[in-house]
Amino acid sequence: MKNPLSEKEGEIFPPSAFCQVGIVVRNIDETLKYYKKVFGFGPFEIREVDYPTATYYGETAGYRGKRAFFYLGPIQIELIELRDGKTIHEAFLREKGEGVHHLAFEVKDLEEGKRKAEEAGLKVIQSFTRPDGSGFAYVDSDRIGGVSFELIQRPARKT
Amino acid sequence: MKNPLSEKEGEIFPPSAFCQVGIVVRNIDETLKYYKKVFGFGPFEIREVDYPTATYYGETAGYRGKRAFFYLGPIQIELIELRDGKTIHEAFLREKGEGVHHLAFEVKDLEEGKRKAEEAGLKVIQSFTRPDGSGFAYVDSDRIGGVSFELIQRPARKT
Repeated sequence: MKNPLSEKEGEIFPPSAFCQVGIVVRNIDETLKYYKKVFGFGPFEIREVDYPTATYYGETAGYRGKRAFFYLGPIQIELIELRDGKTIHEAFLREKGEGVHHLAFEVKDLEEGKRKAEEAGLKVIQSFTRPDGSGFAYVDSDRIGGVSFELIQRPARKT
Repeated sequence: MKNPLSEKEGEIFPPSAFCQVGIVVRNIDETLKYYKKVFGFGPFEIREVDYPTATYYGETAGYRGKRAFFYLGPIQIELIELRDGKTIHEAFLREKGEGVHHLAFEVKDLEEGKRKAEEAGLKVIQSFTRPDGSGFAYVDSDRIGGVSFELIQRPARKT
């Protein structure tokens, strides 16, 4: 169900690597109930996340949250519910209310993606990296057009 | 590049028919320039649209706008710039600013989709139908989770 990656030279956010739509919601359980009953979406995977070393505008801040995942065709939908910590999701909910927060792109090398993004004049405004190098980074792409873009490097599969 | 349609009985918004992310922007030209230069997105198709018989909360209102289309993997991205007329896009921009406005699903029969949606308790808040039956309809799905869903029936291809 995943798009093939195609990272041509100079492409920080390869169009074919578009993999996820992220939605900030007030209450995941209530939203899933609605999405299942009225729209027939699912199955859902629900997860508690904890990113103690996550950065927020360059400073280590850390946050926890609740997440739900499901698929619409080949695209993963992520529902984001706040727990605590400083996040761009909290700012989004406070300023705009519930709704689509980001479009995400899967990359093979997060560090390289962050470096290329910064070389292109983008700022990494929130990020988290696991010991294996996987993780995510949001950039300030929303300053024109209003949409946050995220880079995701998936954890290596345990075999 | 289009998802296969799979309309099982009772599914108004078939997950596999997810086909479009709609983004309301202040200025399409400025956004495309940014998306092309910094992100390498494109090619873009730019179009002026005029829906004189479009409905807004059940009343004929009509509106005109500018649109740009491009693809991220299999998903069409629609950029929406206002011209005139009463629209849910104008309300979104005024209340929330630029950003992702809707996720759209391609259906074979728009009238049937609208009827099923209303039977499921959703309200059609903006819609337009061409003489051939093709067109679109937005529902008030944003009341929980903040995301507008749209049904699209594509015009029949001229052969």
